[in-house]
Amino acid sequence: MKLKVAQFGLGPIGIETLRLAAQKPWLEIVAGIDIDPDKVGKDLGKFCGIKSLVGRQIYASINEIPGRMKPDLVFHTTVSKFRQAFSQLEPLAKRGISVVSSCEELLFPSLAEPRLTQRLKKICQAHGSRIVGTGVNPGFVMDVLPLCLTSVNRSVSAIHIQRVVDASTRREPLQRKIGSGLPPQTFRNLFNEGKAGHAGLKESLALIADALNWRITNLTETGRPVVAKKALRTKFLSVRQGETCGLHQRAEAKVNGKTALTLDLKMYLGAPDPHDAIQIEGEPPLNVRIQGGVAGDQATVAALVNTAKRIHLAKPGLLLMTDLTLPRFA
Amino acid sequence: MKLKVAQFGLGPIGIETLRLAAQKPWLEIVAGIDIDPDKVGKDLGKFCGIKSLVGRQIYASINEIPGRMKPDLVFHTTVSKFRQAFSQLEPLAKRGISVVSSCEELLFPSLAEPRLTQRLKKICQAHGSRIVGTGVNPGFVMDVLPLCLTSVNRSVSAIHIQRVVDASTRREPLQRKIGSGLPPQTFRNLFNEGKAGHAGLKESLALIADALNWRITNLTETGRPVVAKKALRTKFLSVRQGETCGLHQRAEAKVNGKTALTLDLKMYLGAPDPHDAIQIEGEPPLNVRIQGGVAGDQATVAALVNTAKRIHLAKPGLLLMTDLTLPRFA
Repeated sequence: MKLKVAQFGLGPIGIETLRLAAQKPWLEIVAGIDIDPDKVGKDLGKFCGIKSLVGRQIYASINEIPGRMKPDLVFHTTVSKFRQAFSQLEPLAKRGISVVSSCEELLFPSLAEPRLTQRLKKICQAHGSRIVGTGVNPGFVMDVLPLCLTSVNRSVSAIHIQRVVDASTRREPLQRKIGSGLPPQTFRNLFNEGKAGHAGLKESLALIADALNWRITNLTETGRPVVAKKALRTKFLSVRQGETCGLHQRAEAKVNGKTALTLDLKMYLGAPDPHDAIQIEGEPPLNVRIQGGVAGDQATVAALVNTAKRIHLAKPGLLLMTDLTLPRFA
Repeated sequence: MKLKVAQFGLGPIGIETLRLAAQKPWLEIVAGIDIDPDKVGKDLGKFCGIKSLVGRQIYASINEIPGRMKPDLVFHTTVSKFRQAFSQLEPLAKRGISVVSSCEELLFPSLAEPRLTQRLKKICQAHGSRIVGTGVNPGFVMDVLPLCLTSVNRSVSAIHIQRVVDASTRREPLQRKIGSGLPPQTFRNLFNEGKAGHAGLKESLALIADALNWRITNLTETGRPVVAKKALRTKFLSVRQGETCGLHQRAEAKVNGKTALTLDLKMYLGAPDPHDAIQIEGEPPLNVRIQGGVAGDQATVAALVNTAKRIHLAKPGLLLMTDLTLPRFA
């Protein structure tokens, strides 16, 4: 039995998701969805450069997809904010379609949108659909993986996570999102307005706290520009000395008055020694390092596709990664 | 709602499991079970040195436990072989009791005992009980954790896992199981008869292969003594130069003619630089190191107790760790 799948969102991540999904013998790609009028009506396979999908079409919404091609599952890769995603997700949920989404806020939707969370949850339960947000970060390195590690802990008193990403190896939208080329003050302003920076750090933190049954206080997030010490050039853009070349972002929270969760993300062009590191203070203490880090874009796409096989094993609802069975390659 | 729990097996691991379980507000310890006539009838709390359990009793089997104290769940820490565990597990399964077991073969029971697996599975399904085998190794470092890492892989072509344990920091039964103090040839003979060595390496390998849907061939396991280069002394025993001070054990398997899974375990007195390491060949490649390793005995106990909260979310049956939701501290 193959799962019928549609890809919602045909930006770089969406196309790569589709490329991977097209290789899975347990998935059958039926359609693409995108709100961009320039893409709607085009041949999905030709547009994405995936031969095996030639003959499938790109539609403006789920409504336009013919009934016989109704997907069982949608990969959703459009926006970072749940509020913006809601109107895209609601019609899917009402049709009993499951969704694996890269929308960062969906990793722990009730943090940003408690009311929308309740609303979408009820729709999912009423129509037997399942929605989950995942990816590599949020979705793995700074939440799911540290939680998995705590499964061998007698006690956990604090979790500290660092991620250092050399953004020069990443896709263009990410290089821009971290502020590359902006005057530092402009980046600061954009960050404070929520228009620049990495999305999902607070959600990672909230997912950990929820799973550990920790009542957190003083949840804070800060972000500052990393300033280029010399001129830099990537495949996509160039940065002059003194301009922003990335960010240093940090979320932390207290439990019982003590800082018990810190998530520290450095993502800038040319960052040396990229890696992920997790320290768990507890019994036993754990000190884990992923040398070189988890390569972001490839891993995000993999996280989405690998989740598709497991989402149907969970009860209908607006789900968390902690509701699904052990994450793994599928 | 508290889960009522009995502890089956009151050796060092069983007592430590009980000590941890007694601290969990969501567990209520009702009884101990042990086949040793010297323990049966004794006060559980006094015997284990756990004040809060004084007044509970140690019974010879589940049959002797009064009905009003029937446990919902049993922690089972008695033997390594499923065949020996079967007669202990069957009556629990028939009473609808769930079991979290440290029995190494139960991590992937059908490898050693395909028939008993089918039999126990049917009993579990008929009576709504759930049984799972877990621990730190097998159960985490060399199977569950590597699988979790593959969730961000687009492709996986091979997995290599190394574990180096300084056995001088471990409990006495483990120091003896690895052959400490034996003439090397005696250890070789015992290993070949299945009477010495680490249990569960093949099961870890089989669990990974099963989860990745890999058809493995040439599953082999080797074990050789590590010979003491000088006299050694631990809290429990002493080893002369030239005697066995531990083991180097290795399991591997091929997929499509290529060695795709290697599990390498060095566990000996004074082993330098203890650590766990996982390399995943694939896209992206992953290179993970746990500095100092995961402390075995504490972590095993934690793995058992932390699993108790999640086992009831799965369908009844003889389960695998991959059937349960994301492992985590509980």
